[in-house]
Amino acid sequence: MIADASLSEIARRDIEIRAWAYLPAETAATPPATPTHGPLAGLQFGVKDVINVRSMPTQHGAALSAVEPARFDAACVAMLRAAGANPVGKTVTAEFAVTAPGPTRNPWNLAHTPGGSSSGSAAAVAAGMVDFALGTQTGGSMIRPAAFNGVVGFKPSFGRVPRTGMQVLCDSLDTIGWFTRDVGLCRDIARIFFGEPTGVPTKLRVAVLASLEAGALETSAMDALKQAAEDLATHGAEVEWIEEGELITSALAVHQGVMGYELARGLFPILQAEPSALRPQTMAAIEHGLAVTADEYHALQQQRGELQQAWERRCESFDLILTPSAPGTAPAGHASTGSSIFNRTWSLLGWPSIHLPTSEHGDLPIGVQCVGHPLQDLLLLDIAAAIHPWIDRRSRRQP
Amino acid sequence: MIADASLSEIARRDIEIRAWAYLPAETAATPPATPTHGPLAGLQFGVKDVINVRSMPTQHGAALSAVEPARFDAACVAMLRAAGANPVGKTVTAEFAVTAPGPTRNPWNLAHTPGGSSSGSAAAVAAGMVDFALGTQTGGSMIRPAAFNGVVGFKPSFGRVPRTGMQVLCDSLDTIGWFTRDVGLCRDIARIFFGEPTGVPTKLRVAVLASLEAGALETSAMDALKQAAEDLATHGAEVEWIEEGELITSALAVHQGVMGYELARGLFPILQAEPSALRPQTMAAIEHGLAVTADEYHALQQQRGELQQAWERRCESFDLILTPSAPGTAPAGHASTGSSIFNRTWSLLGWPSIHLPTSEHGDLPIGVQCVGHPLQDLLLLDIAAAIHPWIDRRSRRQP
Repeated sequence: MIADASLSEIARRDIEIRAWAYLPAETAATPPATPTHGPLAGLQFGVKDVINVRSMPTQHGAALSAVEPARFDAACVAMLRAAGANPVGKTVTAEFAVTAPGPTRNPWNLAHTPGGSSSGSAAAVAAGMVDFALGTQTGGSMIRPAAFNGVVGFKPSFGRVPRTGMQVLCDSLDTIGWFTRDVGLCRDIARIFFGEPTGVPTKLRVAVLASLEAGALETSAMDALKQAAEDLATHGAEVEWIEEGELITSALAVHQGVMGYELARGLFPILQAEPSALRPQTMAAIEHGLAVTADEYHALQQQRGELQQAWERRCESFDLILTPSAPGTAPAGHASTGSSIFNRTWSLLGWPSIHLPTSEHGDLPIGVQCVGHPLQDLLLLDIAAAIHPWIDRRSRRQP
Repeated sequence: MIADASLSEIARRDIEIRAWAYLPAETAATPPATPTHGPLAGLQFGVKDVINVRSMPTQHGAALSAVEPARFDAACVAMLRAAGANPVGKTVTAEFAVTAPGPTRNPWNLAHTPGGSSSGSAAAVAAGMVDFALGTQTGGSMIRPAAFNGVVGFKPSFGRVPRTGMQVLCDSLDTIGWFTRDVGLCRDIARIFFGEPTGVPTKLRVAVLASLEAGALETSAMDALKQAAEDLATHGAEVEWIEEGELITSALAVHQGVMGYELARGLFPILQAEPSALRPQTMAAIEHGLAVTADEYHALQQQRGELQQAWERRCESFDLILTPSAPGTAPAGHASTGSSIFNRTWSLLGWPSIHLPTSEHGDLPIGVQCVGHPLQDLLLLDIAAAIHPWIDRRSRRQP
């Protein structure tokens, strides 16, 4: 879309949705020239407000006074800019990408949460304000808002999209990803970071993973999962339902400790210097994390390595894991951004995952999460591109 | 040391040595109260100028005009401050922690390089200006300046010291470490990040690794290595000389590609926005790295995983690898910071390593590098503490 179209959609809808944390004042008067070359030429994008964009302040969704504009783009923003895309502005994040929500509303139903922490990015893409938007995931901050907003959301393998110029919350977990309205553009963006795609296997072997001792799955999400599994089988995939209660319970426990330890150390300097910038939810997360000792953390990282191996052995005979993105549709209310319980395992393992919207439940979107093998990002995206038409039963594409 | 003592040493010697990139103006007039509690109470430290310290500018050793003071400490600085240590100021780094040298001189002989990129941190500790100093290593930026300045330099395992608030150059390589004048303090600092130490084996099994097809070892470094190996054997260690030409050659090739790719993406935003801030050496490194494609990078990371496994198999019967820290003593001149060829393998593998000074060659210090198993940081430091007295033949401890 051209910059003008992006800005007029923002002007028209953001009073209600509140996806944007910062838009440069000059942009409204003189929108930047749309670049005309590069693989992403002419695309407009939003940037989660924990990732630096040149001459825009990075405010982290926090009550920080007088934040100076960033001097340089984050590495990923500069790479996208060089590919022809234009960063329109900064999108709302939960405070420091933890859990305390920002002002964003769900564009499908303003009374519901858009999910988080990449709330503004998912909502802005859903509402058609930009072509794509960058987010980050530590637990479920990409896949969950993608699900709640009915957009494609991709969390790459850990360590493959450069994080220079991003405020890292958890060094061994944080992964930069992006939201789009279709898998095609999601894949085009991935090619900036991952090179050339590879071929899709002719016979897909899919593991469907629904059971989860630690979390309740609502009917809406279970129905969407069953329907997608059925649609895949109809199109010739080998589909097998698997149960991995113990591997998941262990992964969730390790994730909680690793995230807590790292988050607390990452935010500790802010707690020391400007505690007034932190809301009680963030304070509680830091306090919880400071209780995890260095010894415990190192033991957890050891366990993580063992879990990665166990999961790889368990999944080596499958091309894809089909699993819920969230317990159900976006919950009502704005006090919480919802549960990330179906995302944290893959964040811990560092495996790539993508949310594909498939239908609606009431007036809210629902879909499924597809998980691929570690570092096989382009294969996952090629598979997602192949199967999305098979499982896509949406009656509305946009709110 | 008290803050006053630190500042007066700096005032006395830094005109010649030039280890400091920034010292707060107020400090000279009213030095900060020395904290009186915490495991590092009363210690003064320097911080490499790619790591944020609250209310000090982070200038990256670059010609950047009007850099604002950092709002928050980096996570590691906040943790050290909470332990009672006081950050005195920012130390000179090679430009953006690559290779273009800063103004620092080697305190043992001003006509020689202090090494880099953590030049100022190593020189400041050597000259007794602070108790310890933080540095970072991507290739050899901790161990090499430690060697050239005759101080203890410790590069932890990859991923265990939080990097939030540091300008990351290479996301999968950069590791924060520290310089001290003895192993004891090095270990005390490590306990802030790594918890409780474990016991040292009663019979040490040491691999001595000297051969290196890709690099020439000078007599000074070979003599130091032989002497240390002999001293260890005298004290009851099982010492075996090993040769691993091919594993090293492969590691160096993979390191070069991974570092090049990541460095180029990390610095690309600066190239885009303020190319005048980059010197020709840095420009050349970026251009070299931009030529590494995403496909090549992913293949290299794959190879890296295989190399990590091969090295672990090769070294599992040893407690320690004893190997040179640098080809020889600090080279004369200031145009280059010297060779990191003996450090890059361990940076790539992510294994912890420590430089131990052992003697002098002419008027310059020399020593050895000890490498431990991945994530066994405290064990390496305990072994280093046990063996340093056995191999320490220095006639002068400080320049």
